[in-house]
Amino acid sequence: MDEFSLINSIKQSYYRQPTLIKGIGDDGAVFRQISQDIVMAVDTFVEDIHFSRKTVPPHSIGYRAMAANISDLAAMTATPAFFLVSIVIPPAWTEDEILNIFEGMKEHAKVYQMDLIGGDTVSGKELSISITVIGYSNKGKTSFRSHACEGDIVFVTGTLGDSQAGFHMLMNDGNYINKEYFINRHQRPSPRINIAKELASLSRVALNDISDGIANEAAEIAEASNVNIVLYEENIPVSAEFDQFPKSLQDHWKYFGGEDFELLGTVSEQDWDLVNNISKKTGVQITKIGYVESSKEINGLVYLQNDNGRKLLNKDGYTHFK
Amino acid sequence: MDEFSLINSIKQSYYRQPTLIKGIGDDGAVFRQISQDIVMAVDTFVEDIHFSRKTVPPHSIGYRAMAANISDLAAMTATPAFFLVSIVIPPAWTEDEILNIFEGMKEHAKVYQMDLIGGDTVSGKELSISITVIGYSNKGKTSFRSHACEGDIVFVTGTLGDSQAGFHMLMNDGNYINKEYFINRHQRPSPRINIAKELASLSRVALNDISDGIANEAAEIAEASNVNIVLYEENIPVSAEFDQFPKSLQDHWKYFGGEDFELLGTVSEQDWDLVNNISKKTGVQITKIGYVESSKEINGLVYLQNDNGRKLLNKDGYTHFK
Repeated sequence: MDEFSLINSIKQSYYRQPTLIKGIGDDGAVFRQISQDIVMAVDTFVEDIHFSRKTVPPHSIGYRAMAANISDLAAMTATPAFFLVSIVIPPAWTEDEILNIFEGMKEHAKVYQMDLIGGDTVSGKELSISITVIGYSNKGKTSFRSHACEGDIVFVTGTLGDSQAGFHMLMNDGNYINKEYFINRHQRPSPRINIAKELASLSRVALNDISDGIANEAAEIAEASNVNIVLYEENIPVSAEFDQFPKSLQDHWKYFGGEDFELLGTVSEQDWDLVNNISKKTGVQITKIGYVESSKEINGLVYLQNDNGRKLLNKDGYTHFK
Repeated sequence: MDEFSLINSIKQSYYRQPTLIKGIGDDGAVFRQISQDIVMAVDTFVEDIHFSRKTVPPHSIGYRAMAANISDLAAMTATPAFFLVSIVIPPAWTEDEILNIFEGMKEHAKVYQMDLIGGDTVSGKELSISITVIGYSNKGKTSFRSHACEGDIVFVTGTLGDSQAGFHMLMNDGNYINKEYFINRHQRPSPRINIAKELASLSRVALNDISDGIANEAAEIAEASNVNIVLYEENIPVSAEFDQFPKSLQDHWKYFGGEDFELLGTVSEQDWDLVNNISKKTGVQITKIGYVESSKEINGLVYLQNDNGRKLLNKDGYTHFK
């Protein structure tokens, strides 16, 4: 299949976004947005680094790659609008597989009325998919990592560690409970756009999406906001059947696993009732998992606290501290 | 070098674009543009497909990759504003080489006051650079390939075939005239942003940048506008010392070579004087190389005409036709 035929196969027959002026078919795409701010992000997925044919079928590779990008928009409280796909295709992948990847991306994009407006298709030695997403946020209402303040409540949506548990099941044969649920969480994750939209109505919210594990995401908020974050070990939400795995795996997955594409955030105590209302309205569990504090000595740290005290939670492991 | 150090090394110390709200350092970049349309394009460059270490040093790989992207904005008569870089880095490339690539991109971006506002850095088996560019164009004044009309004059900026001539010199030792000029045209091409800006003031212009060779670019305009394009064989502009190469190479390079990043366009006859004025003002040669016609039978074709008649100019070779 040449590039021309591929483009014709993946091109949308119509566009959904009223702000679009020119989609695929010229040197660039054109859109107009005068009432909202424009949010952009790009994420790249390389075969055998970010995904494997062994554990994720082509359609889900596309679906999952879109999830990671849409999740970045959710973390900015932006509404998805467009995406562009640059793909490096090696000879080992068939036309059908490549088209399936695009179908997966487009299926996920359609959930949010997103339009595929451009991209590039080139040949190479390994499959690599680079997605650029564009979203809109209300002027001056985009949530930044730097928005956390001392005294804020720290919360997280959904449950953590499910994606890695699903990956573990795919890699290791065994009798598991709720296998389908966990595998689905790995192969077809759902970014939290609906919740992000509601959170945008708060006066202030700091957000990060959980792509690399909560330890890393919390550290990014702590660093950007120059505060410390304390997480209650007991409160980290996990799925009902998560305890079928050894404690060491559970801990590793929920703190460092990532790819759950849940949202980690901080809001003022006054706004906590509003967050609970958002949880009820959207039907998505939102759990209070900690608080924000500020130190005169050092900030940018994340602590894990239990009845015995607290320890430092590094991005890639624990450090006993005090 | 980990991803974090790389990002810190390439991050700009300040941003130049007043429309930027948030650059590198969150889940996405944010900007606001209420008075102009937004133009976006993405291009990917893979080692040994689009460039080779043998013929282009790392700094120029970056410079040249930016040229191709900026050239897409020129073809849309857009003013460059931002770029995002997604890079797959294999173990065979050193930190210094990767930083040199970024330096090359940033040097070229600086010419147009562009800001690096995001990206992704991942490891993989082969070097692959995917650049997303964002530009602004006056509302409703973006030039499309579909803008060509019957009776239009076809023009091209600069000279054609130079980049391929330079590549030939790099691949084949020999005594060449103006070697430095040709090699520079291959390694550090200059997109025609200044001319594009001026052309945007015309009532109507169809434009394509010459990345794949004029035969292909002319066909894209002919197809999008549903017209035929006739090119005068004698008028295709080439550099002074282009005739040092065999006629067959000259022809191949100027029609099918590409990567000159000149602009191919069509304007109404009435506007031709204005185009000449733009040429004088910018100091860049603009040559009338043909005209647009419309057939009742078949459109979307490109002909090459000389004293003996015309032949069909296909994207990848000639076809004798009539």
